[in-house]
Amino acid sequence: MKRNLLLISNSTNYGEAYLGWPREYIKSFLNETTAKRVLFIPYAGVNLSDDGLMASFDAYEARVKAVFAELGYELYSIHKEADAVQAVQEAEAIAVGGGNTFYLVYMMHKMKIMGAIRERVFQGLPYMGWSAGSNVACPTLRTTNDMPIIEPESFACLNVIPFQINPHYLDANPEGHGGETREQRIEEFLVVNPEKYVVGLREACLLRIQGNKIKHVGGRNLRVFKQGMETAEYSSSDNIQFLLD
Amino acid sequence: MKRNLLLISNSTNYGEAYLGWPREYIKSFLNETTAKRVLFIPYAGVNLSDDGLMASFDAYEARVKAVFAELGYELYSIHKEADAVQAVQEAEAIAVGGGNTFYLVYMMHKMKIMGAIRERVFQGLPYMGWSAGSNVACPTLRTTNDMPIIEPESFACLNVIPFQINPHYLDANPEGHGGETREQRIEEFLVVNPEKYVVGLREACLLRIQGNKIKHVGGRNLRVFKQGMETAEYSSSDNIQFLLD
Repeated sequence: MKRNLLLISNSTNYGEAYLGWPREYIKSFLNETTAKRVLFIPYAGVNLSDDGLMASFDAYEARVKAVFAELGYELYSIHKEADAVQAVQEAEAIAVGGGNTFYLVYMMHKMKIMGAIRERVFQGLPYMGWSAGSNVACPTLRTTNDMPIIEPESFACLNVIPFQINPHYLDANPEGHGGETREQRIEEFLVVNPEKYVVGLREACLLRIQGNKIKHVGGRNLRVFKQGMETAEYSSSDNIQFLLD
Repeated sequence: MKRNLLLISNSTNYGEAYLGWPREYIKSFLNETTAKRVLFIPYAGVNLSDDGLMASFDAYEARVKAVFAELGYELYSIHKEADAVQAVQEAEAIAVGGGNTFYLVYMMHKMKIMGAIRERVFQGLPYMGWSAGSNVACPTLRTTNDMPIIEPESFACLNVIPFQINPHYLDANPEGHGGETREQRIEEFLVVNPEKYVVGLREACLLRIQGNKIKHVGGRNLRVFKQGMETAEYSSSDNIQFLLD
Protein backbone atom coordinates (compact mmCIF):
# COMPACT_ATOMS: atom_id res chain seq x y z
CA MET A 1 0.00 0.00 0.00
CA LYS A 2 1.83 3.09 -1.27
CA ARG A 3 -0.74 5.69 -0.19
CA ASN A 4 0.70 9.17 0.37
CA LEU A 5 -1.97 11.57 1.61
CA LEU A 6 -2.17 15.02 3.18
CA LEU A 7 -5.76 15.62 4.35
CA ILE A 8 -6.35 19.15 5.63
CA SER A 9 -9.41 20.33 7.57
CA ASN A 10 -9.65 23.88 6.22
CA SER A 11 -7.79 26.06 3.77
CA THR A 12 -7.76 29.19 5.84
CA ASN A 13 -8.07 30.16 9.48
CA TYR A 14 -10.27 33.14 10.27
CA GLY A 15 -8.43 36.36 9.50
CA GLU A 16 -5.38 34.72 7.88
CA ALA A 17 -4.18 34.69 4.25
CA TYR A 18 -5.63 32.11 1.86
CA LEU A 19 -4.01 28.69 2.46
CA GLY A 20 -2.01 30.38 5.20
CA TRP A 21 -1.61 27.86 8.00
CA PRO A 22 -1.26 24.67 5.87
CA ARG A 23 1.33 26.18 3.53
CA GLU A 24 4.36 24.82 5.38
CA TYR A 25 2.81 21.33 5.46
CA ILE A 26 2.00 21.39 1.74
CA LYS A 27 5.57 22.45 1.03
CA SER A 28 7.23 19.70 3.06
CA PHE A 29 4.72 17.15 1.72
CA LEU A 30 5.70 18.00 -1.87
CA ASN A 31 9.40 18.37 -1.06
CA GLU A 32 9.46 14.70 -0.05
CA THR A 33 8.23 13.68 -3.52
CA THR A 34 9.73 13.94 -7.02
CA ALA A 35 6.76 16.02 -8.25
CA LYS A 36 7.37 19.39 -9.89
CA ARG A 37 3.86 19.97 -11.20
CA VAL A 38 0.54 19.53 -9.38
CA LEU A 39 -2.78 18.73 -11.04
CA PHE A 40 -5.55 20.77 -9.38
CA ILE A 41 -9.18 19.65 -9.06
CA PRO A 42 -11.22 22.89 -8.75
CA TYR A 43 -14.76 21.47 -9.00
CA ALA A 44 -15.80 22.28 -5.42
CA GLY A 45 -15.27 25.99 -6.10
CA VAL A 46 -18.58 26.93 -7.71
CA ASN A 47 -18.87 30.48 -6.48
CA LEU A 48 -15.57 32.33 -7.01
CA SER A 49 -16.85 34.39 -9.93
CA ASP A 50 -20.08 36.12 -10.96
CA ASP A 51 -19.57 34.84 -14.50
CA GLY A 52 -20.52 31.22 -14.02
CA LEU A 53 -18.86 27.93 -13.25
CA MET A 54 -16.00 27.94 -15.78
CA ALA A 55 -14.98 31.45 -14.70
CA SER A 56 -15.19 30.27 -11.08
CA PHE A 57 -12.85 27.35 -11.80
CA ASP A 58 -10.48 29.75 -13.59
CA ALA A 59 -10.49 32.07 -10.56
CA TYR A 60 -9.94 29.16 -8.19
CA GLU A 61 -7.00 27.88 -10.23
CA ALA A 62 -5.42 31.35 -10.25
CA ARG A 63 -5.78 31.71 -6.49
CA VAL A 64 -4.21 28.34 -5.68
CA LYS A 65 -1.60 28.58 -8.44
CA ALA A 66 -0.20 31.73 -6.82
CA VAL A 67 0.27 29.94 -3.48
CA PHE A 68 1.91 26.88 -5.05
CA ALA A 69 4.19 29.08 -7.14
CA GLU A 70 5.48 30.66 -3.93
CA LEU A 71 6.27 27.15 -2.72
CA GLY A 72 8.16 26.39 -5.94
CA TYR A 73 5.55 24.23 -7.67
CA GLU A 74 3.61 24.64 -10.90
CA LEU A 75 -0.10 24.06 -10.54
CA TYR A 76 -2.48 23.46 -13.47
CA SER A 77 -6.20 22.72 -13.38
CA ILE A 78 -8.02 19.71 -14.75
CA HIS A 79 -10.90 21.83 -16.07
CA LYS A 80 -8.60 23.07 -18.84
CA GLU A 81 -7.35 19.62 -19.81
CA ALA A 82 -8.75 18.05 -22.98
CA ASP A 83 -8.87 14.57 -21.44
CA ALA A 84 -9.48 14.56 -17.69
CA VAL A 85 -8.77 10.85 -17.19
CA GLN A 86 -5.52 11.09 -19.10
CA ALA A 87 -4.55 14.14 -17.03
CA VAL A 88 -4.99 12.04 -13.88
CA GLN A 89 -3.00 9.18 -15.37
CA GLU A 90 -0.12 11.52 -16.17
CA ALA A 91 -0.20 13.62 -12.98
CA GLU A 92 2.84 13.91 -10.70
CA ALA A 93 0.72 14.98 -7.72
CA ILE A 94 -2.92 15.94 -7.13
CA ALA A 95 -4.47 18.72 -5.04
CA VAL A 96 -8.23 18.80 -4.47
CA GLY A 97 -9.59 22.13 -3.30
CA GLY A 98 -12.41 22.82 -0.84
CA GLY A 99 -15.84 24.29 -1.50
CA ASN A 100 -19.04 22.38 -2.13
CA THR A 101 -18.52 18.63 -1.72
CA PHE A 102 -21.66 17.71 -3.68
CA TYR A 103 -20.57 19.62 -6.75
CA LEU A 104 -17.07 18.15 -6.45
CA VAL A 105 -18.39 14.59 -6.24
CA TYR A 106 -20.92 15.25 -9.02
CA MET A 107 -18.13 16.39 -11.36
CA MET A 108 -15.67 13.67 -10.34
CA HIS A 109 -18.26 11.05 -11.28
CA LYS A 110 -19.30 12.90 -14.42
CA MET A 111 -15.71 13.26 -15.62
CA LYS A 112 -15.02 9.58 -14.74
CA ILE A 113 -11.97 10.48 -12.66
CA MET A 114 -13.07 8.92 -9.34
CA GLY A 115 -11.72 5.48 -10.25
CA ALA A 116 -8.66 6.86 -12.04
CA ILE A 117 -7.55 8.93 -9.02
CA ARG A 118 -8.19 6.04 -6.62
CA GLU A 119 -6.06 3.72 -8.70
CA ARG A 120 -3.18 6.17 -8.87
CA VAL A 121 -3.34 6.95 -5.14
CA PHE A 122 -2.84 3.27 -4.38
CA GLN A 123 0.16 3.32 -6.73
CA GLY A 124 1.70 6.14 -4.66
CA LEU A 125 0.55 9.33 -6.37
CA PRO A 126 0.88 12.15 -3.81
CA TYR A 127 -2.63 13.37 -2.95
CA MET A 128 -3.52 16.45 -0.95
CA GLY A 129 -6.92 17.92 -0.24
CA TRP A 130 -8.51 20.48 2.01
CA SER A 131 -12.08 20.56 3.34
CA ALA A 132 -14.18 18.99 0.52
CA GLY A 133 -10.90 17.65 -0.86
CA SER A 134 -10.36 15.71 2.37
CA ASN A 135 -13.95 14.52 2.45
CA VAL A 136 -13.67 13.04 -1.00
CA ALA A 137 -10.79 10.77 0.12
CA CYS A 138 -13.31 8.96 2.39
CA PRO A 139 -15.55 6.01 1.47
CA THR A 140 -18.51 8.35 0.84
CA LEU A 141 -19.53 12.00 1.16
CA ARG A 142 -21.93 11.13 3.99
CA THR A 143 -20.14 13.29 6.61
CA THR A 144 -19.88 16.53 4.66
CA ASN A 145 -21.26 19.76 6.13
CA ASP A 146 -22.14 21.12 2.72
CA MET A 147 -25.47 21.87 1.11
CA PRO A 148 -26.60 19.23 -1.43
CA ILE A 149 -26.88 21.75 -4.27
CA ILE A 150 -26.74 19.03 -6.93
CA GLU A 151 -27.45 15.31 -7.00
CA PRO A 152 -24.30 13.32 -7.79
CA GLU A 153 -24.45 10.03 -9.66
CA SER A 154 -23.56 8.39 -6.33
CA PHE A 155 -22.40 9.33 -2.82
CA ALA A 156 -19.39 7.00 -3.28
CA CYS A 157 -16.02 8.78 -3.07
CA LEU A 158 -12.36 7.82 -3.53
CA ASN A 159 -12.36 5.38 -0.60
CA VAL A 160 -8.59 5.63 -0.17
CA ILE A 161 -9.03 5.67 3.62
CA PRO A 162 -11.47 3.40 5.50
CA PHE A 163 -12.99 6.06 7.81
CA GLN A 164 -15.04 9.23 7.40
CA ILE A 165 -13.71 12.73 8.02
CA ASN A 166 -15.90 15.59 9.19
CA PRO A 167 -13.84 18.67 8.29
CA HIS A 168 -14.26 22.04 10.04
CA TYR A 169 -15.39 20.07 13.09
CA LEU A 170 -16.74 22.47 15.66
CA ASP A 171 -18.22 21.98 19.08
CA ALA A 172 -20.80 24.70 19.50
CA ASN A 173 -23.77 26.14 17.66
CA PRO A 174 -24.30 29.88 17.40
CA GLU A 175 -25.91 30.94 20.65
CA GLY A 176 -29.64 30.42 20.88
CA HIS A 177 -29.81 28.40 17.65
CA GLY A 178 -32.26 25.48 17.76
CA GLY A 179 -30.70 23.42 14.93
CA GLU A 180 -28.66 20.27 15.47
CA THR A 181 -25.08 20.56 16.73
CA ARG A 182 -22.33 18.92 14.68
CA GLU A 183 -22.09 16.14 17.24
CA GLN A 184 -25.83 15.44 16.92
CA ARG A 185 -25.49 15.28 13.14
CA ILE A 186 -22.64 12.78 13.41
CA GLU A 187 -24.65 10.72 15.91
CA GLU A 188 -27.41 10.53 13.28
CA PHE A 189 -24.79 9.28 10.81
CA LEU A 190 -23.68 6.58 13.27
CA VAL A 191 -27.22 5.22 13.69
CA VAL A 192 -27.40 4.49 9.98
CA ASN A 193 -23.67 3.67 9.46
CA PRO A 194 -22.68 1.80 12.65
CA GLU A 195 -19.56 0.19 11.16
CA LYS A 196 -17.72 3.44 10.36
CA TYR A 197 -15.38 5.62 12.38
CA VAL A 198 -15.96 9.37 11.98
CA VAL A 199 -13.04 11.69 12.64
CA GLY A 200 -14.02 15.24 13.61
CA LEU A 201 -11.07 17.21 12.19
CA ARG A 202 -10.99 20.60 13.88
CA GLU A 203 -9.71 23.67 12.07
CA ALA A 204 -5.94 24.07 11.67
CA CYS A 205 -5.50 20.28 11.83
CA LEU A 206 -4.55 17.69 9.25
CA LEU A 207 -3.99 13.98 8.78
CA ARG A 208 -0.82 12.63 7.19
CA ILE A 209 -1.11 9.09 5.83
CA GLN A 210 1.83 7.18 4.42
CA GLY A 211 1.17 3.58 3.48
CA ASN A 212 -0.34 2.05 6.60
CA LYS A 213 0.79 4.80 8.96
CA ILE A 214 -1.38 7.70 10.07
CA LYS A 215 -0.41 10.81 11.99
CA HIS A 216 -2.45 13.77 13.20
CA VAL A 217 -0.83 17.20 13.07
CA GLY A 218 -2.29 20.26 14.78
CA GLY A 219 -2.82 21.90 18.13
CA ARG A 220 -6.43 20.75 18.52
CA ASN A 221 -7.56 17.23 19.36
CA LEU A 222 -9.22 14.89 16.93
CA ARG A 223 -12.68 13.83 18.07
CA VAL A 224 -13.45 10.23 17.08
CA PHE A 225 -16.95 8.77 16.97
CA LYS A 226 -18.20 5.22 16.46
CA GLN A 227 -21.53 3.61 17.23
CA GLY A 228 -21.42 1.74 20.54
CA MET A 229 -18.10 3.30 21.59
CA GLU A 230 -17.49 6.24 23.86
CA THR A 231 -16.55 9.31 21.84
CA ALA A 232 -12.86 10.03 22.41
CA GLU A 233 -10.36 12.84 21.92
CA TYR A 234 -6.84 12.26 20.58
CA SER A 235 -3.98 14.71 20.64
CA SER A 236 -1.23 14.68 18.02
CA SER A 237 0.97 12.55 20.30
CA ASP A 238 -1.66 9.80 20.65
CA ASN A 239 -1.64 6.62 18.59
CA ILE A 240 -4.58 6.65 16.13
CA GLN A 241 -3.40 3.67 14.08
CA PHE A 242 -6.71 1.85 14.73
CA LEU A 243 -8.36 4.19 12.21
CA LEU A 244 -6.58 2.38 9.36
CA ASP A 245 -7.30 -1.18 10.55
CA MET B 1 -55.48 24.01 -6.56
CA LYS B 2 -56.68 22.94 -3.10
CA ARG B 3 -53.30 22.97 -1.32
CA ASN B 4 -53.52 23.54 2.43
CA LEU B 5 -50.05 23.73 3.99
CA LEU B 6 -48.48 24.80 7.26
CA LEU B 7 -44.68 24.88 6.83
CA ILE B 8 -42.82 25.55 10.05
CA SER B 9 -39.12 26.45 10.34
CA ASN B 10 -38.32 24.70 13.63
CA SER B 11 -40.17 22.63 16.20
CA THR B 12 -38.72 24.26 19.26
CA ASN B 13 -37.11 27.55 20.20
CA TYR B 14 -34.06 27.37 22.40
CA GLY B 15 -35.09 26.79 26.01
CA GLU B 16 -38.81 26.25 25.29
CA ALA B 17 -40.98 23.10 25.52
CA TYR B 18 -41.05 20.71 22.55
CA LEU B 19 -43.29 22.09 19.79
CA GLY B 20 -43.87 25.07 22.06
CA TRP B 21 -44.11 28.13 19.84
CA PRO B 22 -45.90 26.56 16.82
CA ARG B 23 -48.55 24.85 18.96
CA GLU B 24 -51.15 27.60 18.60
CA TYR B 25 -50.67 27.64 14.82
CA ILE B 26 -50.99 23.86 14.53
CA LYS B 27 -54.18 24.04 16.56
CA SER B 28 -55.84 26.72 14.48
CA PHE B 29 -54.65 25.04 11.27
CA LEU B 30 -56.36 21.79 12.28
CA ASN B 31 -59.42 23.52 13.74
CA GLU B 32 -60.17 24.91 10.27
CA THR B 33 -60.33 21.38 8.84
CA THR B 34 -62.65 18.41 9.42
CA ALA B 35 -59.72 16.20 10.52
CA LYS B 36 -59.87 14.43 13.88
CA ARG B 37 -56.87 12.15 13.36
CA VAL B 38 -53.43 13.03 12.03
CA LEU B 39 -51.08 10.63 10.24
CA PHE B 40 -47.50 11.23 11.44
CA ILE B 41 -44.38 10.68 9.31
CA PRO B 42 -41.53 10.06 11.81
CA TYR B 43 -38.76 9.00 9.42
CA ALA B 44 -36.52 12.05 9.99
CA GLY B 45 -36.22 11.14 13.67
CA VAL B 46 -33.40 8.60 13.56
CA ASN B 47 -31.80 9.31 16.90
CA LEU B 48 -34.46 9.51 19.61
CA SER B 49 -33.60 6.13 21.14
CA ASP B 50 -30.48 4.08 21.82
CA ASP B 51 -32.32 0.97 20.65
CA GLY B 52 -32.29 1.57 16.93
CA LEU B 53 -34.48 3.11 14.29
CA MET B 54 -37.84 1.48 15.06
CA ALA B 55 -37.50 2.40 18.73
CA SER B 56 -36.58 5.93 17.65
CA PHE B 57 -39.73 6.21 15.52
CA ASP B 58 -41.77 4.88 18.48
CA ALA B 59 -40.24 7.51 20.76
CA TYR B 60 -40.84 10.25 18.19
CA GLU B 61 -44.48 9.25 17.78
CA ALA B 62 -44.99 9.28 21.56
CA ARG B 63 -43.46 12.73 21.91
CA VAL B 64 -45.58 14.31 19.17
CA LYS B 65 -48.72 12.35 20.08
CA ALA B 66 -48.67 13.94 23.54
CA VAL B 67 -48.62 17.45 22.07
CA PHE B 68 -51.40 16.74 19.57
CA ALA B 69 -53.52 15.12 22.30
CA GLU B 70 -53.33 18.37 24.26
CA LEU B 71 -54.65 20.13 21.17
CA GLY B 72 -57.53 17.64 20.91
CA TYR B 73 -56.24 15.51 18.01
CA GLU B 74 -55.28 11.85 17.77
CA LEU B 75 -51.93 11.26 16.14
CA TYR B 76 -50.77 7.87 14.79
CA SER B 77 -47.55 7.03 13.01
CA ILE B 78 -47.08 5.54 9.55
CA HIS B 79 -44.26 3.27 10.71
CA LYS B 80 -46.85 1.09 12.50
CA GLU B 81 -49.21 0.89 9.53
CA ALA B 82 -49.29 -2.35 7.53
CA ASP B 83 -49.67 -0.51 4.21
CA ALA B 84 -48.02 2.92 4.13
CA VAL B 85 -49.51 3.99 0.80
CA GLN B 86 -53.00 3.02 1.93
CA ALA B 87 -52.46 4.93 5.17
CA VAL B 88 -51.70 8.05 3.12
CA GLN B 89 -54.74 7.48 0.92
CA GLU B 90 -57.00 7.25 4.00
CA ALA B 91 -55.40 10.04 6.07
CA GLU B 92 -57.45 13.02 7.28
CA ALA B 93 -54.33 15.17 7.76
CA ILE B 94 -50.57 14.64 7.64
CA ALA B 95 -47.78 15.90 9.91
CA VAL B 96 -44.14 15.42 8.89
CA GLY B 97 -41.65 15.79 11.73
CA GLY B 98 -38.17 17.30 11.62
CA GLY B 99 -34.81 15.59 12.01
CA ASN B 100 -32.57 14.30 9.22
CA THR B 101 -33.94 15.26 5.80
CA PHE B 102 -31.88 12.64 3.95
CA TYR B 103 -33.27 9.78 6.02
CA LEU B 104 -36.79 11.19 5.64
CA VAL B 105 -36.48 11.42 1.86
CA TYR B 106 -34.80 8.00 1.67
CA MET B 107 -37.73 6.41 3.52
CA MET B 108 -40.44 8.34 1.66
CA HIS B 109 -39.05 7.02 -1.63
CA LYS B 110 -38.51 3.53 -0.24
CA MET B 111 -42.07 3.33 1.14
CA LYS B 112 -43.43 4.76 -2.16
CA ILE B 113 -45.36 7.51 -0.36
CA MET B 114 -43.80 10.53 -2.09
CA GLY B 115 -46.24 10.40 -5.00
CA ALA B 116 -49.20 9.38 -2.84
CA ILE B 117 -48.77 12.35 -0.47
CA ARG B 118 -48.26 14.77 -3.33
CA GLU B 119 -51.45 13.62 -5.01
CA ARG B 120 -53.49 13.98 -1.81
CA VAL B 121 -52.03 17.41 -1.02
CA PHE B 122 -53.27 18.69 -4.37
CA GLN B 123 -56.70 17.25 -3.50
CA GLY B 124 -56.74 19.34 -0.31
CA LEU B 125 -55.32 17.02 2.37
CA PRO B 126 -54.10 19.26 5.21
CA TYR B 127 -50.29 18.99 5.37
CA MET B 128 -48.07 20.34 8.13
CA GLY B 129 -44.34 19.92 8.55
CA TRP B 130 -41.53 21.36 10.59
CA SER B 131 -37.84 21.63 9.66
CA ALA B 132 -37.16 18.54 7.48
CA GLY B 133 -40.96 18.27 7.13
CA SER B 134 -41.02 21.72 5.52
CA ASN B 135 -38.01 20.95 3.34
CA VAL B 136 -39.71 17.89 1.90
CA ALA B 137 -42.63 19.99 0.61
CA CYS B 138 -40.15 21.67 -1.81
CA PRO B 139 -39.17 20.51 -5.30
CA THR B 140 -35.99 18.85 -3.95
CA LEU B 141 -33.97 18.48 -0.75
CA ARG B 142 -31.20 20.64 -2.20
CA THR B 143 -31.48 23.37 0.44
CA THR B 144 -31.40 21.23 3.57
CA ASN B 145 -28.83 21.90 6.30
CA ASP B 146 -28.65 18.24 7.25
CA MET B 147 -25.86 15.72 6.95
CA PRO B 148 -26.27 13.27 4.02
CA ILE B 149 -26.18 10.21 6.27
CA ILE B 150 -27.81 7.99 3.65
CA GLU B 151 -28.21 8.13 -0.13
CA PRO B 152 -31.88 8.46 -1.12
CA GLU B 153 -33.17 7.02 -4.38
CA SER B 154 -33.46 10.61 -5.58
CA PHE B 155 -33.24 14.18 -4.24
CA ALA B 156 -36.77 14.81 -5.61
CA CYS B 157 -39.30 15.74 -2.91
CA LEU B 158 -43.06 16.40 -2.77
CA ASN B 159 -42.86 19.46 -5.02
CA VAL B 160 -46.13 20.88 -3.67
CA ILE B 161 -44.61 24.39 -3.68
CA PRO B 162 -42.42 25.77 -6.49
CA PHE B 163 -39.64 27.26 -4.34
CA GLN B 164 -37.02 25.96 -1.91
CA ILE B 165 -37.11 26.53 1.84
CA ASN B 166 -33.98 26.75 3.96
CA PRO B 167 -35.29 26.11 7.48
CA HIS B 168 -33.49 27.29 10.63
CA TYR B 169 -32.10 30.12 8.51
CA LEU B 170 -29.45 31.94 10.48
CA ASP B 171 -27.24 34.86 9.67
CA ALA B 172 -24.00 34.26 11.53
CA ASN B 173 -21.43 31.55 11.98
CA PRO B 174 -20.00 30.76 15.41
CA GLU B 175 -17.30 33.32 16.03
CA GLY B 176 -13.94 32.57 14.43
CA HIS B 177 -15.27 29.65 12.37
CA GLY B 178 -13.79 29.38 8.88
CA GLY B 179 -16.62 27.33 7.30
CA GLU B 180 -19.19 28.76 4.90
CA THR B 181 -22.02 30.90 6.25
CA ARG B 182 -25.58 29.89 5.43
CA GLU B 183 -25.80 32.70 2.90
CA GLN B 184 -22.65 31.46 1.13
CA ARG B 185 -24.13 27.95 0.98
CA ILE B 186 -27.34 29.25 -0.58
CA GLU B 187 -25.33 31.32 -3.06
CA GLU B 188 -23.62 28.08 -4.13
CA PHE B 189 -27.08 26.57 -4.64
CA LEU B 190 -28.11 29.52 -6.82
CA VAL B 191 -25.10 29.11 -9.13
CA VAL B 192 -26.23 25.59 -9.98
CA ASN B 193 -30.01 26.20 -9.70
CA PRO B 194 -30.49 29.72 -11.10
CA GLU B 195 -34.22 29.33 -11.76
CA LYS B 196 -35.28 28.69 -8.15
CA TYR B 197 -36.24 31.02 -5.32
CA VAL B 198 -34.81 30.07 -1.93
CA VAL B 199 -36.66 31.24 1.17
CA GLY B 200 -34.52 31.52 4.30
CA LEU B 201 -37.09 30.74 7.00
CA ARG B 202 -35.74 32.01 10.31
CA GLU B 203 -36.61 30.29 13.58
CA ALA B 204 -40.09 30.90 15.05
CA CYS B 205 -41.46 31.59 11.56
CA LEU B 206 -43.80 29.66 9.29
CA LEU B 207 -45.46 29.78 5.89
CA ARG B 208 -49.20 29.27 5.47
CA ILE B 209 -50.27 28.28 1.98
CA GLN B 210 -53.93 27.94 0.95
CA GLY B 211 -54.55 27.23 -2.70
CA ASN B 212 -52.67 29.99 -4.51
CA LYS B 213 -52.28 32.26 -1.49
CA ILE B 214 -49.17 32.40 0.68
CA LYS B 215 -48.65 34.16 4.00
CA HIS B 216 -45.63 34.45 6.25
CA VAL B 217 -46.22 34.38 10.01
CA GLY B 218 -43.55 35.28 12.56
CA GLY B 219 -41.64 38.16 14.07
CA ARG B 220 -38.53 37.67 11.92
CA ASN B 221 -38.20 38.57 8.26
CA LEU B 222 -38.03 36.03 5.45
CA ARG B 223 -34.81 36.30 3.46
CA VAL B 224 -35.38 35.55 -0.22
CA PHE B 225 -32.60 34.64 -2.66
CA LYS B 226 -32.57 34.21 -6.43
CA GLN B 227 -29.74 34.21 -8.92
CA GLY B 228 -29.37 37.62 -10.58
CA MET B 229 -31.69 39.36 -8.08
CA GLU B 230 -30.79 41.36 -5.05
CA THR B 231 -31.39 39.35 -1.89
CA ALA B 232 -34.41 40.81 -0.10
CA GLU B 233 -36.10 40.73 3.30
CA TYR B 234 -39.86 40.47 3.75
CA SER B 235 -41.80 41.04 6.94
CA SER B 236 -45.09 39.28 7.63
CA SER B 237 -47.03 42.28 6.30
CA ASP B 238 -45.27 42.20 2.91
CA ASN B 239 -46.75 40.59 -0.20
CA ILE B 240 -44.75 37.45 -1.09
CA GLN B 241 -47.24 36.13 -3.63
CA PHE B 242 -44.51 36.06 -6.34
CA LEU B 243 -43.10 32.94 -4.66
CA LEU B 244 -46.06 30.89 -5.94
CA ASP B 245 -45.99 32.23 -9.52
